[in-house]
Amino acid sequence: MTADTTETFGVDAAAHEAARTTILDVAAEVFQHEGFNRATIDDIAEGIGATKGRVYYYFRSKFDIYLAVYEHGMRLVREAVEPHAEGPGTGRDRLIAMSEAHAENLMTYLSYHNTIHQGIHRRTTPALKARQAQQLAELNGIREDYETMFRRVVAEGMTDGSLRDEDPQLTARMLLSSLNSIDSWFHTRPGQSTEELQDLAARITRMLITGLEIQ
Amino acid sequence: MTADTTETFGVDAAAHEAARTTILDVAAEVFQHEGFNRATIDDIAEGIGATKGRVYYYFRSKFDIYLAVYEHGMRLVREAVEPHAEGPGTGRDRLIAMSEAHAENLMTYLSYHNTIHQGIHRRTTPALKARQAQQLAELNGIREDYETMFRRVVAEGMTDGSLRDEDPQLTARMLLSSLNSIDSWFHTRPGQSTEELQDLAARITRMLITGLEIQ
Repeated sequence: MTADTTETFGVDAAAHEAARTTILDVAAEVFQHEGFNRATIDDIAEGIGATKGRVYYYFRSKFDIYLAVYEHGMRLVREAVEPHAEGPGTGRDRLIAMSEAHAENLMTYLSYHNTIHQGIHRRTTPALKARQAQQLAELNGIREDYETMFRRVVAEGMTDGSLRDEDPQLTARMLLSSLNSIDSWFHTRPGQSTEELQDLAARITRMLITGLEIQ
Repeated sequence: MTADTTETFGVDAAAHEAARTTILDVAAEVFQHEGFNRATIDDIAEGIGATKGRVYYYFRSKFDIYLAVYEHGMRLVREAVEPHAEGPGTGRDRLIAMSEAHAENLMTYLSYHNTIHQGIHRRTTPALKARQAQQLAELNGIREDYETMFRRVVAEGMTDGSLRDEDPQLTARMLLSSLNSIDSWFHTRPGQSTEELQDLAARITRMLITGLEIQ
């Protein structure tokens, strides 16, 4: 009997999940500020005010924490954005709603997005375990699916005449990488309200979809 | 008499400069592919087909090479973009010319830009020598001046009525970070011509300045 099975399948499954998420929240901040290479399990343990043992109770290695942060971050942004991909509006209208949701999610969960953007291609060392390589491949797949969703809506907007004709792949890629580039300059201000973030997300989206020039 | 003074002020100043630039070109590639932390002087020496001793003849440390790559990359992009900031056109017209030049320069010197984007804030360790800290501050200043130039032209475009009214700082920052985000997905194809890169730079610039929607 390992500690893992006791807690996961015991009465404390919800508590287990909550504790795990707390570690991920802290780990994302540590990865954001230190970068993956410099970040240590000690930093993460310190951030949750616990021992390294507690972190190792939930995760086997720093790289496993990295993968879990990545996965959790992708889940958060997908849950926020995916509902806007369907629905009655034109491709342009849906793309605006998706972009606003993505930008707001990025500013809200900045450390998760920053960790995701640090990239996983440099993490593929020969020392990678089969289990980790598998998880890495799945996460890459999730990220590709996410981009494909944008590409599909872009293509639909070009078909319905709401978006200018261009290569849908280039357009979606440029839109998404531009939205993600917010993380290179945005800093959370203490006390910044949800309304302020939504307003900023809307203005940024307007820049990217409507453009900067006066038509 | 050090080796440095002999070669720098001898008849071989041009050869010295050329050899130094060769090291920077290779180092930028190494930083791009390995990241600063994993990159080693050995990798760079191997890339130029020489010994570590040869690299150390020109640079004192990996971090000094990093700073030199950053500086050289910033010089290349400034030389390409600055001439377009002045001139007779509207703010919009000049911003388009600047953005196209920036995008083309980025795709041409991808490894330099990628190295610059890896950021220097994480390099500021307590171990930083005074000389390096000073150089770091100067490079940050150069990058800020570069962004200020974009902000000025943006503001002029808003004044002359060619650009939509927005916060010039937010607009310039978003435009530049979007242009820089090209490096997250662009890969050089062998045999890609200058014309192809210029065409791609123009299409990307059009997306960012004119927008994606049909007006």
